[in-house]
Amino acid sequence: MEFKETMLSRKSCREFTDQAVEAEKLEKVITAASMAPLGMPKAGKPHLTVVINKDMLKTLGGLAGPERGDIIYGAPVLIIVSCPVTAPGLAEMNAACVVEMMSLAATDLGLGNIYLYGVTAALQHNDALKAELGIPENCIPLSALALGYGTEHVTVCKSFTKTLTENRID
Amino acid sequence: MEFKETMLSRKSCREFTDQAVEAEKLEKVITAASMAPLGMPKAGKPHLTVVINKDMLKTLGGLAGPERGDIIYGAPVLIIVSCPVTAPGLAEMNAACVVEMMSLAATDLGLGNIYLYGVTAALQHNDALKAELGIPENCIPLSALALGYGTEHVTVCKSFTKTLTENRID
Repeated sequence: MEFKETMLSRKSCREFTDQAVEAEKLEKVITAASMAPLGMPKAGKPHLTVVINKDMLKTLGGLAGPERGDIIYGAPVLIIVSCPVTAPGLAEMNAACVVEMMSLAATDLGLGNIYLYGVTAALQHNDALKAELGIPENCIPLSALALGYGTEHVTVCKSFTKTLTENRID
Repeated sequence: MEFKETMLSRKSCREFTDQAVEAEKLEKVITAASMAPLGMPKAGKPHLTVVINKDMLKTLGGLAGPERGDIIYGAPVLIIVSCPVTAPGLAEMNAACVVEMMSLAATDLGLGNIYLYGVTAALQHNDALKAELGIPENCIPLSALALGYGTEHVTVCKSFTKTLTENRID
C-alpha cells in the first residue's frame, strides 16, 4: 500500500486470532528490521529473537504475573529486539527504530501488531530465560513486536491530526 | 510512493542544497510525528522544536566544536524531539519512533533527511540554549531530524537484505 496509508493504518492490536503468520510474510517483517536507521552501528547492531514456540510465548506472556494477564495478547509471533550498550540511550533508540520499522512493514502486509515494552522490561531481570532465548550475552532485550492476524482487519484508522506540541524558531 | 519504496529509499543525507523546504511539505513531516507509536503517552508526550532560523541552525550545527564541523550538515530545517522522563528508556524510545516516522514521511515527500543524535546530546548540557529554543523545562532533547533537499535525489538505494543477526525459538 501507499506509505501514507500504511502510516495511517498502524495501530496497536491487542486481540489476535489463532491464524498463523505465513513464513513468507514473517520473513518480510524480519528483513524490514534491517532498513531501520541505526546510530553507531559499527559499535554493535541489534539482534532479533523470533519466538513462535507456543510454550515460550506462554512463558513470555506471563512474565508480569497472573494479575496482569497475558502481556503479549495471545499473539502467535513475538520478535524481541536486543541491543549491545554503546552510547547513552542509543541502544534504546536503535531498538525502537527497529521495532517501528517492523511494525510498519507488518501493517503494510495486513498483519496486526503491537509495539511492546513491558515484556522486555520483565525479561531484563531473568538471566536464565534470556539464555534459554539465545539472546547474546552482550545484549539487553529492550523492546519487542507482537504480531499475527488481529480480530480487526488492518485499515486506515487515523487522520492527519497533530497530537504532539510544537514550537518554532524562525 | 509505496511503503516498500519509501523504506528502501530512506538513507542518511549528509549534503543539502540551499533549496528551502516548502511550508506544506514541512507541515506534513511535522504531522507525521503524531503517527508514531508511543509508550505511556498519558505520562507525557514528545515535544517538537522546529528550527528554521539560520543563526540558530548555525549555532546548533557548531555545538560539537569547530574541529567537528557542522553536525547538522547545512540542513535548512532541524526538528528537535524532546521528551519528559517517564519509565526507564521510554523517553529515548519515544523520541526515536517520532524521528523515524518523520524520516520516512520526509523520504516519501522526496526530502533528504538524517536522524541525528549528536546535536541533542550536546544540547542536553546547555540550559541557556534549551531555554532559547523554547524546549519545555520538563523535557530532555533526545534526537533530531535534519531535512531539506539533498544533492542526491531520493530514490531506492537499498535492497531487501538482512544486516542484523537473528535466532529463532520454534
